[in-house]
Amino acid sequence: MKKSLGPQTFVYPHPVLLVGTYDGEGRPNLMTAAWGGICCSAPPCGAVSVRPGRHTHDAVMARKAFTVSIPSVDHVVAADYAGIVSGRDADKFEVAGLTPTRSEVVDAPYLEEAPLVLVCRLLHAFPLGVHVQFVGEIVDCLCEESGLGENGLPDIEKVRPIVYAGGNRAYYAVGERLGAAFSMGKALKR
Amino acid sequence: MKKSLGPQTFVYPHPVLLVGTYDGEGRPNLMTAAWGGICCSAPPCGAVSVRPGRHTHDAVMARKAFTVSIPSVDHVVAADYAGIVSGRDADKFEVAGLTPTRSEVVDAPYLEEAPLVLVCRLLHAFPLGVHVQFVGEIVDCLCEESGLGENGLPDIEKVRPIVYAGGNRAYYAVGERLGAAFSMGKALKR
Repeated sequence: MKKSLGPQTFVYPHPVLLVGTYDGEGRPNLMTAAWGGICCSAPPCGAVSVRPGRHTHDAVMARKAFTVSIPSVDHVVAADYAGIVSGRDADKFEVAGLTPTRSEVVDAPYLEEAPLVLVCRLLHAFPLGVHVQFVGEIVDCLCEESGLGENGLPDIEKVRPIVYAGGNRAYYAVGERLGAAFSMGKALKR
Repeated sequence: MKKSLGPQTFVYPHPVLLVGTYDGEGRPNLMTAAWGGICCSAPPCGAVSVRPGRHTHDAVMARKAFTVSIPSVDHVVAADYAGIVSGRDADKFEVAGLTPTRSEVVDAPYLEEAPLVLVCRLLHAFPLGVHVQFVGEIVDCLCEESGLGENGLPDIEKVRPIVYAGGNRAYYAVGERLGAAFSMGKALKR
Protein backbone atom coordinates (compact mmCIF):
# COMPACT_ATOMS: atom_id res chain seq x y z
CA MET A 1 0.00 0.00 0.00
CA LYS A 2 1.45 3.32 -1.07
CA LYS A 3 1.17 6.52 0.91
CA SER A 4 1.08 9.91 -0.81
CA LEU A 5 3.68 12.23 0.71
CA GLY A 6 2.82 15.18 -1.53
CA PRO A 7 5.46 16.97 -3.61
CA GLN A 8 8.78 15.83 -2.14
CA THR A 9 12.31 15.54 -3.46
CA PHE A 10 13.43 12.00 -2.64
CA VAL A 11 15.71 10.06 -4.95
CA TYR A 12 17.74 7.19 -3.46
CA PRO A 13 20.67 6.84 -3.65
CA HIS A 14 21.79 10.45 -4.04
CA PRO A 15 25.47 11.36 -4.50
CA VAL A 16 27.43 13.88 -2.44
CA LEU A 17 28.88 16.39 -4.90
CA LEU A 18 31.32 19.13 -3.95
CA VAL A 19 31.31 22.03 -6.41
CA GLY A 20 34.70 23.75 -6.72
CA THR A 21 35.02 27.35 -7.91
CA TYR A 22 37.18 30.45 -7.68
CA ASP A 23 35.35 33.55 -6.44
CA GLY A 24 35.82 37.18 -7.55
CA GLU A 25 38.97 37.49 -5.43
CA GLY A 26 40.38 34.25 -6.80
CA ARG A 27 39.79 32.36 -3.57
CA PRO A 28 39.00 28.67 -3.98
CA ASN A 29 35.65 27.57 -2.62
CA LEU A 30 33.86 24.29 -2.19
CA MET A 31 30.09 23.84 -1.83
CA THR A 32 28.09 20.69 -1.26
CA ALA A 33 25.51 20.77 -4.04
CA ALA A 34 21.91 20.16 -3.07
CA TRP A 35 21.29 18.25 -6.28
CA GLY A 36 23.23 17.04 -9.27
CA GLY A 37 24.49 14.25 -11.46
CA ILE A 38 25.16 13.30 -15.05
CA CYS A 39 22.62 14.54 -17.60
CA CYS A 40 23.99 13.71 -21.08
CA SER A 41 26.35 11.12 -22.56
CA ALA A 42 27.57 13.10 -25.58
CA PRO A 43 28.71 15.73 -25.13
CA PRO A 44 29.34 14.34 -21.66
CA CYS A 45 27.51 16.69 -19.30
CA GLY A 46 27.17 17.03 -15.57
CA ALA A 47 24.63 19.16 -13.71
CA VAL A 48 24.62 20.79 -10.30
CA SER A 49 21.82 22.87 -8.82
CA VAL A 50 22.80 26.00 -6.90
CA ARG A 51 20.67 28.71 -5.30
CA PRO A 52 21.19 32.16 -6.87
CA GLY A 53 22.12 33.65 -3.47
CA ARG A 54 25.01 31.25 -2.95
CA HIS A 55 28.64 32.31 -3.22
CA THR A 56 29.17 29.47 -5.70
CA HIS A 57 26.43 30.74 -8.03
CA ASP A 58 28.22 34.02 -8.71
CA ALA A 59 31.56 32.24 -9.08
CA VAL A 60 30.24 29.82 -11.72
CA MET A 61 28.59 32.63 -13.64
CA ALA A 62 31.78 34.72 -13.59
CA ARG A 63 34.28 32.00 -14.49
CA LYS A 64 32.01 29.80 -16.66
CA ALA A 65 33.59 26.79 -15.04
CA PHE A 66 33.26 24.45 -12.08
CA THR A 67 34.49 21.11 -10.86
CA VAL A 68 32.55 18.34 -9.17
CA SER A 69 34.60 16.46 -6.58
CA ILE A 70 33.21 13.20 -5.25
CA PRO A 71 34.53 12.64 -1.74
CA SER A 72 35.12 9.23 -0.23
CA VAL A 73 33.65 8.10 3.07
CA ASP A 74 36.96 9.18 4.65
CA HIS A 75 35.93 12.82 4.13
CA VAL A 76 32.27 12.70 5.12
CA VAL A 77 32.73 15.26 7.92
CA ALA A 78 34.38 17.77 5.58
CA ALA A 79 31.73 17.13 2.92
CA ASP A 80 28.98 17.85 5.43
CA TYR A 81 30.80 20.97 6.64
CA ALA A 82 31.04 22.30 3.06
CA GLY A 83 27.24 22.26 2.89
CA ILE A 84 26.49 24.15 6.10
CA VAL A 85 28.97 27.05 5.87
CA SER A 86 29.25 29.75 3.19
CA GLY A 87 32.48 30.50 1.40
CA ARG A 88 31.74 34.16 2.16
CA ASP A 89 32.34 33.44 5.84
CA ALA A 90 35.15 30.92 5.85
CA ASP A 91 37.94 29.42 3.78
CA LYS A 92 36.43 25.96 3.85
CA PHE A 93 39.51 24.28 2.41
CA GLU A 94 41.68 25.75 5.16
CA VAL A 95 39.25 25.05 8.00
CA ALA A 96 38.70 21.45 6.90
CA GLY A 97 42.40 20.86 6.25
CA LEU A 98 41.77 20.16 2.59
CA THR A 99 43.75 20.99 -0.52
CA PRO A 100 42.46 22.99 -3.51
CA THR A 101 44.19 22.05 -6.75
CA ARG A 102 43.86 24.30 -9.78
CA SER A 103 42.47 22.49 -12.81
CA GLU A 104 44.81 22.50 -15.77
CA VAL A 105 41.85 22.74 -18.14
CA VAL A 106 39.23 25.11 -16.68
CA ASP A 107 39.32 28.09 -14.33
CA ALA A 108 38.26 26.23 -11.19
CA PRO A 109 39.84 24.25 -8.37
CA TYR A 110 39.01 20.73 -7.25
CA LEU A 111 39.41 18.83 -4.02
CA GLU A 112 42.77 17.10 -4.15
CA GLU A 113 41.63 14.59 -1.51
CA ALA A 114 38.62 13.47 -3.59
CA PRO A 115 39.13 10.17 -5.41
CA LEU A 116 36.97 11.21 -8.38
CA VAL A 117 36.59 14.62 -10.03
CA LEU A 118 34.62 15.94 -13.01
CA VAL A 119 36.07 19.05 -14.64
CA CYS A 120 33.33 21.12 -16.27
CA ARG A 121 32.99 24.06 -18.62
CA LEU A 122 29.64 25.85 -18.18
CA LEU A 123 27.23 25.21 -21.07
CA HIS A 124 23.84 26.21 -19.67
CA ALA A 125 22.34 27.92 -16.63
CA PHE A 126 18.69 26.91 -16.42
CA PRO A 127 16.65 28.87 -13.85
CA LEU A 128 14.20 26.28 -12.48
CA GLY A 129 12.91 27.98 -9.32
CA VAL A 130 14.86 28.39 -6.10
CA HIS A 131 17.71 26.56 -7.81
CA VAL A 132 19.58 27.34 -11.00
CA GLN A 133 20.71 24.18 -12.75
CA PHE A 134 24.23 24.57 -14.10
CA VAL A 135 24.94 22.14 -16.92
CA GLY A 136 28.61 21.76 -17.71
CA GLU A 137 30.42 19.89 -20.41
CA ILE A 138 32.72 17.39 -18.71
CA VAL A 139 36.04 18.18 -20.35
CA ASP A 140 38.00 15.82 -18.12
CA CYS A 141 37.47 13.18 -15.47
CA LEU A 142 40.22 12.69 -12.90
CA CYS A 143 40.52 9.61 -10.76
CA GLU A 144 42.99 8.81 -8.02
CA GLU A 145 45.07 5.87 -9.22
CA SER A 146 44.14 3.98 -6.05
CA GLY A 147 40.47 4.34 -7.12
CA LEU A 148 40.87 2.64 -10.48
CA GLY A 149 39.83 -0.92 -11.20
CA GLU A 150 41.61 -3.43 -13.39
CA ASN A 151 39.74 -2.08 -16.43
CA GLY A 152 41.28 1.36 -15.85
CA LEU A 153 37.94 2.91 -14.84
CA PRO A 154 36.76 4.18 -11.44
CA ASP A 155 35.94 1.21 -9.20
CA ILE A 156 33.14 2.07 -6.76
CA GLU A 157 34.64 -0.32 -4.20
CA LYS A 158 37.89 1.65 -4.27
CA VAL A 159 36.37 5.14 -4.67
CA ARG A 160 34.05 4.41 -1.69
CA PRO A 161 31.65 7.32 -2.34
CA ILE A 162 29.08 8.67 0.10
CA VAL A 163 25.34 8.02 -0.31
CA TYR A 164 23.00 10.78 0.88
CA ALA A 165 19.53 9.85 2.13
CA GLY A 166 17.23 12.87 2.48
CA GLY A 167 14.47 11.18 4.48
CA ASN A 168 17.02 9.85 6.96
CA ARG A 169 19.01 13.11 6.91
CA ALA A 170 22.02 10.81 6.96
CA TYR A 171 25.00 9.56 4.99
CA TYR A 172 25.63 5.94 4.09
CA ALA A 173 28.37 3.87 2.47
CA VAL A 174 27.89 1.68 -0.60
CA GLY A 175 27.29 -1.97 0.28
CA GLU A 176 27.60 -5.31 -1.47
CA ARG A 177 27.66 -5.96 -5.21
CA LEU A 178 24.36 -7.27 -6.57
CA GLY A 179 25.35 -8.24 -10.11
CA ALA A 180 26.37 -7.14 -13.60
CA ALA A 181 24.51 -4.33 -15.36
CA PHE A 182 23.28 -4.82 -18.95
CA SER A 183 23.47 -8.52 -18.20
CA MET A 184 21.26 -9.64 -15.29
CA GLY A 185 18.13 -8.56 -17.20
CA LYS A 186 18.90 -10.87 -20.13
CA ALA A 187 17.40 -13.68 -18.08
CA LEU A 188 13.99 -12.14 -18.81
CA LYS A 189 14.55 -11.66 -22.57
CA ARG A 190 12.39 -13.88 -24.73
CA MET B 1 48.25 10.87 -7.85
CA LYS B 2 45.35 11.55 -10.18
CA LYS B 3 45.00 10.07 -13.62
CA SER B 4 43.18 11.93 -16.39
CA LEU B 5 40.55 9.69 -17.98
CA GLY B 6 39.39 12.29 -20.48
CA PRO B 7 35.74 13.30 -20.81
CA GLN B 8 33.82 10.57 -18.95
CA THR B 9 30.46 10.38 -17.21
CA PHE B 10 31.15 8.93 -13.79
CA VAL B 11 29.20 10.00 -10.74
CA TYR B 12 29.07 7.64 -7.76
CA PRO B 13 26.62 6.63 -6.41
CA HIS B 14 24.12 6.83 -9.27
CA PRO B 15 20.46 5.88 -8.77
CA VAL B 16 18.48 3.39 -10.88
CA LEU B 17 15.44 5.27 -12.15
CA LEU B 18 12.60 3.66 -14.07
CA VAL B 19 10.66 6.13 -16.20
CA GLY B 20 6.97 5.22 -16.58
CA THR B 21 4.89 6.45 -19.52
CA TYR B 22 1.90 5.62 -21.70
CA ASP B 23 2.67 5.43 -25.41
CA GLY B 24 0.49 6.51 -28.34
CA GLU B 25 -1.64 3.37 -28.04
CA GLY B 26 -2.05 3.83 -24.31
CA ARG B 27 0.28 0.97 -23.47
CA PRO B 28 2.26 1.38 -20.25
CA ASN B 29 6.02 1.38 -20.66
CA LEU B 30 8.98 1.41 -18.34
CA MET B 31 12.51 2.54 -19.26
CA THR B 32 15.65 2.56 -17.16
CA ALA B 33 16.91 6.14 -17.48
CA ALA B 34 20.55 6.61 -18.33
CA TRP B 35 20.75 9.65 -16.10
CA GLY B 36 18.55 11.55 -13.69
CA GLY B 37 17.85 12.88 -10.23
CA ILE B 38 16.44 15.84 -8.38
CA CYS B 39 17.28 19.28 -9.82
CA CYS B 40 15.27 21.86 -7.86
CA SER B 41 13.76 22.10 -4.36
CA ALA B 42 10.92 24.56 -5.12
CA PRO B 43 9.07 23.88 -7.24
CA PRO B 44 10.24 20.34 -6.52
CA CYS B 45 11.68 19.07 -9.79
CA GLY B 46 13.06 15.80 -11.01
CA ALA B 47 15.04 15.24 -14.20
CA VAL B 48 15.56 12.23 -16.44
CA SER B 49 17.66 12.12 -19.60
CA VAL B 50 16.23 10.20 -22.57
CA ARG B 51 17.54 9.76 -26.11
CA PRO B 52 15.22 11.26 -28.78
CA GLY B 53 14.98 7.89 -30.55
CA ARG B 54 13.60 6.09 -27.50
CA HIS B 55 9.98 5.00 -27.20
CA THR B 56 9.81 6.87 -23.88
CA HIS B 57 10.88 10.15 -25.48
CA ASP B 58 7.84 10.34 -27.74
CA ALA B 59 5.57 9.23 -24.91
CA VAL B 60 6.74 11.99 -22.56
CA MET B 61 6.43 14.62 -25.28
CA ALA B 62 2.89 13.47 -26.13
CA ARG B 63 1.49 13.11 -22.62
CA LYS B 64 3.58 15.82 -20.91
CA ALA B 65 3.94 13.50 -17.94
CA PHE B 66 6.14 10.75 -16.55
CA THR B 67 6.79 8.91 -13.34
CA VAL B 68 10.11 7.91 -11.81
CA SER B 69 9.95 4.60 -9.96
CA ILE B 70 12.85 3.68 -7.71
CA PRO B 71 13.11 -0.11 -7.52
CA SER B 72 14.45 -1.96 -4.51
CA VAL B 73 17.25 -4.50 -4.68
CA ASP B 74 14.52 -7.17 -4.91
CA HIS B 75 13.80 -6.02 -8.48
CA VAL B 76 17.31 -5.52 -9.80
CA VAL B 77 16.86 -8.08 -12.61
CA ALA B 78 13.68 -6.39 -13.85
CA ALA B 79 15.31 -2.95 -13.58
CA ASP B 80 18.23 -4.13 -15.69
CA TYR B 81 15.85 -5.72 -18.21
CA ALA B 82 13.94 -2.43 -18.58
CA GLY B 83 17.15 -0.79 -19.77
CA ILE B 84 18.14 -3.31 -22.44
CA VAL B 85 14.82 -3.86 -24.23
CA SER B 86 12.62 -1.31 -26.04
CA GLY B 87 8.94 -0.87 -25.27
CA ARG B 88 8.42 -1.01 -29.03
CA ASP B 89 9.42 -4.66 -28.97
CA ALA B 90 7.99 -5.96 -25.72
CA ASP B 91 5.48 -5.26 -22.96
CA LYS B 92 8.15 -4.99 -20.31
CA PHE B 93 5.69 -5.00 -17.43
CA GLU B 94 4.17 -8.26 -18.64
CA VAL B 95 7.48 -9.97 -19.43
CA ALA B 96 9.00 -9.02 -16.08
CA GLY B 97 5.84 -9.91 -14.16
CA LEU B 98 5.43 -6.35 -12.93
CA THR B 99 2.34 -4.20 -12.36
CA PRO B 100 1.68 -0.81 -13.98
CA THR B 101 -0.53 1.40 -11.84
CA ARG B 102 -2.14 4.49 -13.36
CA SER B 103 -1.24 7.68 -11.52
CA GLU B 104 -4.25 9.47 -10.10
CA VAL B 105 -2.58 12.82 -10.79
CA VAL B 106 -0.79 12.68 -14.16
CA ASP B 107 -1.24 10.71 -17.39
CA ALA B 108 1.45 8.11 -16.70
CA PRO B 109 1.80 4.76 -14.96
CA TYR B 110 4.26 3.80 -12.26
CA LEU B 111 5.75 0.54 -11.09
CA GLU B 112 3.49 -0.79 -8.33
CA GLU B 113 6.32 -2.95 -6.97
CA ALA B 114 8.65 0.06 -6.51
CA PRO B 115 8.90 1.29 -2.93
CA LEU B 116 9.36 4.94 -3.95
CA VAL B 117 7.80 6.86 -6.85
CA LEU B 118 7.98 10.45 -8.08
CA VAL B 119 4.97 11.61 -10.10
CA CYS B 120 5.97 14.33 -12.57
CA ARG B 121 4.34 16.83 -14.88
CA LEU B 122 6.65 17.87 -17.72
CA LEU B 123 8.01 21.40 -17.32
CA HIS B 124 11.00 21.53 -19.67
CA ALA B 125 12.63 19.45 -22.38
CA PHE B 126 16.24 20.61 -22.71
CA PRO B 127 18.08 19.20 -25.77
CA LEU B 128 21.64 18.70 -24.50
CA GLY B 129 23.13 16.44 -27.16
CA VAL B 130 22.38 12.74 -27.59
CA HIS B 131 20.07 13.07 -24.59
CA VAL B 132 17.10 15.32 -23.98
CA GLN B 133 16.76 16.23 -20.33
CA PHE B 134 13.14 16.14 -19.23
CA VAL B 135 12.55 18.27 -16.14
CA GLY B 136 9.29 17.54 -14.42
CA GLU B 137 7.55 19.18 -11.51
CA ILE B 138 7.14 16.54 -8.83
CA VAL B 139 3.43 16.79 -8.09
CA ASP B 140 3.41 13.81 -5.75
CA CYS B 141 5.78 11.39 -4.07
CA LEU B 142 4.47 7.92 -3.26
CA CYS B 143 6.15 5.62 -0.79
CA GLU B 144 5.27 2.08 0.18
CA GLU B 145 4.22 2.14 3.84
CA SER B 146 6.82 -0.52 4.58
CA GLY B 147 9.45 1.90 3.24
CA LEU B 148 8.66 4.72 5.67
CA GLY B 149 10.72 5.52 8.74
CA GLU B 150 9.44 6.66 12.12
CA ASN B 151 9.48 10.27 10.91
CA GLY B 152 7.02 9.38 8.13
CA LEU B 153 9.62 9.87 5.39
CA PRO B 154 11.26 7.32 3.09
CA ASP B 155 13.88 5.37 5.05
CA ILE B 156 16.75 4.28 2.80
CA GLU B 157 17.27 1.17 4.96
CA LYS B 158 13.69 0.11 4.22
CA VAL B 159 13.49 1.32 0.62
CA ARG B 160 16.75 -0.56 -0.14
CA PRO B 161 17.46 1.19 -3.47
CA ILE B 162 19.95 0.05 -6.09
CA VAL B 163 23.28 1.84 -6.65
CA TYR B 164 24.61 1.87 -10.23
CA ALA B 165 28.37 2.01 -10.81
CA GLY B 166 29.26 2.80 -14.40
CA GLY B 167 32.96 1.94 -14.23
CA ASN B 168 32.13 -1.44 -12.69
CA ARG B 169 29.13 -1.94 -15.00
CA ALA B 170 27.46 -3.33 -11.89
CA TYR B 171 24.74 -2.77 -9.31
CA TYR B 172 25.31 -2.45 -5.60
CA ALA B 173 23.23 -2.21 -2.43
CA VAL B 174 23.46 0.64 0.08
CA GLY B 175 25.69 -0.18 3.04
CA GLU B 176 26.16 1.05 6.57
CA ARG B 177 25.09 4.41 8.01
CA LEU B 178 27.99 6.85 8.40
CA GLY B 179 26.34 9.65 10.38
CA ALA B 180 23.88 12.54 10.46
CA ALA B 181 23.76 15.08 7.63
CA PHE B 182 23.84 18.80 8.45
CA SER B 183 25.37 17.79 11.75
CA MET B 184 28.68 15.89 11.40
CA GLY B 185 30.28 18.94 9.78
CA LYS B 186 29.57 21.17 12.79
CA ALA B 187 32.64 19.66 14.44
CA LEU B 188 34.73 21.78 12.03
CA LYS B 189 32.81 25.03 12.58
CA ARG B 190 34.81 27.71 14.35
